Amino acid sequence: MRAETTHSPTARNAPQAAVMNFLNEIAGRYPAAISLAAGRPNNRLFDRLKPEALLDAFHCYDAHTHGGTSLLQYGRTAGIINELVARQLSDDDGVPADASRLLITAGCQEALYLCLPELCPLPTDTLLVCNPTYIGGIGAAQAAGVHIAALPDVGGGQLPEAIERVATQLKREGCCARALYIIPDFDNPTGRILDRLQRCAILEVCTKHRIVVLEDNPYGMFRYEGDAVPTMAALDSGGCVIYLSTYSKTLSPALRVGAACLPTALFGDEAMRDALWNRLIERKSFVTVNTSQINQSIIGGILLQQSCSLREWVRPVLEAYRANRDAMLDELQRVFPHGGIDVRWNRPSGGFFLSLDLPFRFDADAVTECAERYGVIVMPMSFFALDDSQDRRVRLAFSAVEPAQIRVGISNLGRFVRERLRGHTRREEQEIIDS
Amino acid sequence: MRAETTHSPTARNAPQAAVMNFLNEIAGRYPAAISLAAGRPNNRLFDRLKPEALLDAFHCYDAHTHGGTSLLQYGRTAGIINELVARQLSDDDGVPADASRLLITAGCQEALYLCLPELCPLPTDTLLVCNPTYIGGIGAAQAAGVHIAALPDVGGGQLPEAIERVATQLKREGCCARALYIIPDFDNPTGRILDRLQRCAILEVCTKHRIVVLEDNPYGMFRYEGDAVPTMAALDSGGCVIYLSTYSKTLSPALRVGAACLPTALFGDEAMRDALWNRLIERKSFVTVNTSQINQSIIGGILLQQSCSLREWVRPVLEAYRANRDAMLDELQRVFPHGGIDVRWNRPSGGFFLSLDLPFRFDADAVTECAERYGVIVMPMSFFALDDSQDRRVRLAFSAVEPAQIRVGISNLGRFVRERLRGHTRREEQEIIDS
Repeated sequence: MRAETTHSPTARNAPQAAVMNFLNEIAGRYPAAISLAAGRPNNRLFDRLKPEALLDAFHCYDAHTHGGTSLLQYGRTAGIINELVARQLSDDDGVPADASRLLITAGCQEALYLCLPELCPLPTDTLLVCNPTYIGGIGAAQAAGVHIAALPDVGGGQLPEAIERVATQLKREGCCARALYIIPDFDNPTGRILDRLQRCAILEVCTKHRIVVLEDNPYGMFRYEGDAVPTMAALDSGGCVIYLSTYSKTLSPALRVGAACLPTALFGDEAMRDALWNRLIERKSFVTVNTSQINQSIIGGILLQQSCSLREWVRPVLEAYRANRDAMLDELQRVFPHGGIDVRWNRPSGGFFLSLDLPFRFDADAVTECAERYGVIVMPMSFFALDDSQDRRVRLAFSAVEPAQIRVGISNLGRFVRERLRGHTRREEQEIIDS
Repeated sequence: MRAETTHSPTARNAPQAAVMNFLNEIAGRYPAAISLAAGRPNNRLFDRLKPEALLDAFHCYDAHTHGGTSLLQYGRTAGIINELVARQLSDDDGVPADASRLLITAGCQEALYLCLPELCPLPTDTLLVCNPTYIGGIGAAQAAGVHIAALPDVGGGQLPEAIERVATQLKREGCCARALYIIPDFDNPTGRILDRLQRCAILEVCTKHRIVVLEDNPYGMFRYEGDAVPTMAALDSGGCVIYLSTYSKTLSPALRVGAACLPTALFGDEAMRDALWNRLIERKSFVTVNTSQINQSIIGGILLQQSCSLREWVRPVLEAYRANRDAMLDELQRVFPHGGIDVRWNRPSGGFFLSLDLPFRFDADAVTECAERYGVIVMPMSFFALDDSQDRRVRLAFSAVEPAQIRVGISNLGRFVRERLRGHTRREEQEIIDS
């Protein structure tokens, strides 16, 4: 018996596999339905990325390099814009980044996919994940044949103790917790944020057990209220954080550029850091050779134009996301007033998502019913889970839609919930008629 | 004992790992040395890919799609320009390609990397490779944890029989040959081409043993004389060929776009083809999510502008490559005249490479000596080998240099060879003085 719910690394028919196909199919079948399922960036992010602006950025980077090497050739495996990206991560995310240990990847997904098998080379080496967690985190581990152990679904305050417990239990079983995949800022799918104390406590337990923290931070730039919490990479004194970054949410997912930044010394050991670096570079060369120099140049140019900070760049879309979040929270409050039916949700201080608890099971059939009869598409939280603990929960994404759509979508979802609770859904009525 | 030289799939310190670093280091240390080592496309390939041309191509594709979806968003896992690429593969390479079973990847390297673990999921499943072969082929298999068996270094005519023999031997050992990685047109590193009869015979033995042929064809468009031989995908009646294609040699490596085209029915079985397709899509989604839509759009635009054939597009650079090859062959003939020292080479009818046999061992030390004392950098064929059969051979690349450089480089290499054979290399003289 494993410590917690685990997944066979060779499992082929993982539920995650079919999720995207399923949602795309639903969206295709019910094109009029409002989607609160997709965690995509809002298209207004692209207003300043017209093709001519992409060209300007390319020219800007090309001029910066003095046309020294052809940007259309094969290039350095680790990337070419590492200095600029290191400055941006330092300025915007407080990451003590250094170009010499920063790997540019084909999106953050590749960074994760490269790290996992190198951190967990043995069949007993285990990746710890929150439950629920990002589908691509679980999927990358499964594709890489890496053993997964799910942490129990506890609040951030109990997470350090849960990591300690699972790591100890794994050791007892002859396994070894090698890495932790975590999204401390505005988690996908829950919207949760870890506070500073929680981050420090997690770092302490991970340093103690020599567990590498894969800190994924796609949403950290999108905070709608309150003060920023330092990234775990910024708080890391034990050398256990690999910081994963992406330009998919700040610039464009179509650039497919992300980065992994290694600590100065892995658990205090520079030689160990160098060895990991060399293995990552080797693996990168055999997976995608190098990251598109055209796309790197576009990003390099924008970073030059923006003095290596994207804070100002994201401001307009940040304001839109805040309005979206507020519209969703307001409408949830209107549709599910206090003291009414037992529906609860969190109030995320940033990011793209919130988490909705329902008093009944919400599965793939419920998705279809919502889309078909109520004109709204949402994601069952169970799609992100490794056990049945999330069966009564829904992920609501407010990033890619407009406030008016959000209000209609939540209102429609409210009708579905009330009718389901009254046991008077049209489907059931129809079944009575049919029988 | 394995049938042939094999590599442990978990080997970390494979010789291939250090090759690129070593060559980059040599090139950095001896910047004045002429490199006949790099198999890069010639920079003149990029003359028509100025940034403004890339922008035009992007606009062209955008207009073609009627701006229906934002090209800056996340996109379809399998790609968006599949119809155009299928037409190009059909027109230029005779591949019976269909968009519905064509996967767009982050370079051909990713296509290979995705296919290998899906074709060889079990530890006993084995990839057959020619020996020597492309470093990235061996590296992708090692990175994916796939067992490799090397075919003996025989002529194309004996290859079908060698495949039969190794497959049978593997079976006897409890292993199973699942896939064959091969470059039938102007092989990297040897420059060899397989004729039609050889291709048909390989297809026959692979169909019989249900071995999937991964036909990699980066150089097929670069033929300098004689008639084209049909691609193995064009000759495939048994449904065993997965055709791998790239735009790195025809357009630009910086686009990082390649493709894998599955057969209509895998070994006659459409359901098996569908199952493989679904697994490849899933794996792709967890490795790089999708291929950059910006880069796909640029290629889509060029394909639209070129009526989906790149034959005319590559003509200028093809002429340059032919001149380079001729310069190399002429200079080899001048430097090593018949009846002189025992140095032989092949006359490739296309591609980027030729293979040079020396009467002595040529290793990493020889590379350094050539670079330092003779101003020429070449690749030991042993860097591409799985055993010691290639120790007296060199790969010469003529793609990225100019005829004048080629003449100087070969002349310098000739001096090295003659001095080495006379036992009068300067190093040895120095050792005599020193001792």
